[in-house]
Amino acid sequence: MPTGSQDVYATLAKMGIELVAPPAPAAAYVPYVIDADTVYLSGHLARRDGAVHVGRLGQGMDTAQGRQAARAIAVDLLATLHGATGDLSRVDRIVKVMSLVNSSPDFTEQHLVTNGASELLQEVFGSQVGAHARSAFGVAQLPMGACVEIEMIVRIRRN
Amino acid sequence: MPTGSQDVYATLAKMGIELVAPPAPAAAYVPYVIDADTVYLSGHLARRDGAVHVGRLGQGMDTAQGRQAARAIAVDLLATLHGATGDLSRVDRIVKVMSLVNSSPDFTEQHLVTNGASELLQEVFGSQVGAHARSAFGVAQLPMGACVEIEMIVRIRRN
Amino acid sequence: MPTGSQDVYATLAKMGIELVAPPAPAAAYVPYVIDADTVYLSGHLARRDGAVHVGRLGQGMDTAQGRQAARAIAVDLLATLHGATGDLSRVDRIVKVMSLVNSSPDFTEQHLVTNGASELLQEVFGSQVGAHARSAFGVAQLPMGACVEIEMIVRIRRN
Repeated sequence: MPTGSQDVYATLAKMGIELVAPPAPAAAYVPYVIDADTVYLSGHLARRDGAVHVGRLGQGMDTAQGRQAARAIAVDLLATLHGATGDLSRVDRIVKVMSLVNSSPDFTEQHLVTNGASELLQEVFGSQVGAHARSAFGVAQLPMGACVEIEMIVRIRRN
Repeated sequence: MPTGSQDVYATLAKMGIELVAPPAPAAAYVPYVIDADTVYLSGHLARRDGAVHVGRLGQGMDTAQGRQAARAIAVDLLATLHGATGDLSRVDRIVKVMSLVNSSPDFTEQHLVTNGASELLQEVFGSQVGAHARSAFGVAQLPMGACVEIEMIVRIRRN
Repeated sequence: MPTGSQDVYATLAKMGIELVAPPAPAAAYVPYVIDADTVYLSGHLARRDGAVHVGRLGQGMDTAQGRQAARAIAVDLLATLHGATGDLSRVDRIVKVMSLVNSSPDFTEQHLVTNGASELLQEVFGSQVGAHARSAFGVAQLPMGACVEIEMIVRIRRN
């Protein structure tokens, strides 16, 4: 476990995670904006096998599958963050995560789905840097029918 | 009415409000992150009698009940903020509130529900400090079936 | 096309856009809060002919109509931002947009709806200043039945 973030890439390698930049946004926005020391990452849609991962929790998709989708989004967010910062060891703190879970009216485990992302962030950065504030909730639908969408605010150290 | 925030605790006492820290998050995140002068508070779920306050507005729960739930969340947010800052008189501005209201497809009074929280914040801090930007909307579901979830961004003065 | 933001008002005039401040919030909050260099704009509801633009995408309202509604909200956000800053040429960067689209369970073009706002922002400010991070998603309902609600975070230059 890293106590700081110096070992981020070693940790990723140990976890068997390869960072591949997700495709450019399918619409009129950019994947991130750096505002002074803060990186605002756009909502990233769940992807699987190179396409949007379509689904709705509580309707043909269970919590364990949702967790995996959220974890995969966290990897994509890290790939975007790597591109934004040039070096993930500049990450000072994962500040906040907002997780939108495509939910049937009866599905109430958005927090467990979102843990797939939250736990990955803490595994990669350690709990000092990786522990974050969070909101998770169930939405009526998502762009292209994605099962989960996650955005993130990150504090970085200046170069 | 306080004109600043020096009288926050006196105001709370006069209002008969006791701050009791809400239970630790039921998932892999923390209740707040302090980023320089900004406190990001995680989405807090409505609670009642020590348990999640389950319900859906427009479906067995009316606007007045939702307002009470939102007000109770605001008290929990203040308890978390007290723990985060050590002293609520350090609060410089309630910057932004995001309110997620578990809504039937026909319920359109999310703004009135959320006023339960917004009005409490202004009663406690006065309108200079307490008035905030806000988004309120209806969600398909919330973790554990909660009726309302609210997150908050707060500017504080450094110690 | 402006390369900076000096020409914002000329661009708006060329586009035939007149900024008229939207009505004060219908509830206990304020239209924006300025936090140091950052303006947090409250969620603005779609309006048409001076009233809330009621509707749900995928249920009697199509993507093209949603785009127009989102574009109109962006104009309202600029009117609020003009009031907040006194001068839109102080805008340094549109940082982030969050777009809530009142959606039927089957509507999956929230990103295309939201482009109505995103594209307007880039037309007005140019792509350097106007390109922003973004999340767009489908909500179960919105205050007063509005079809779209959009909030925005903007970095400004100090006077």
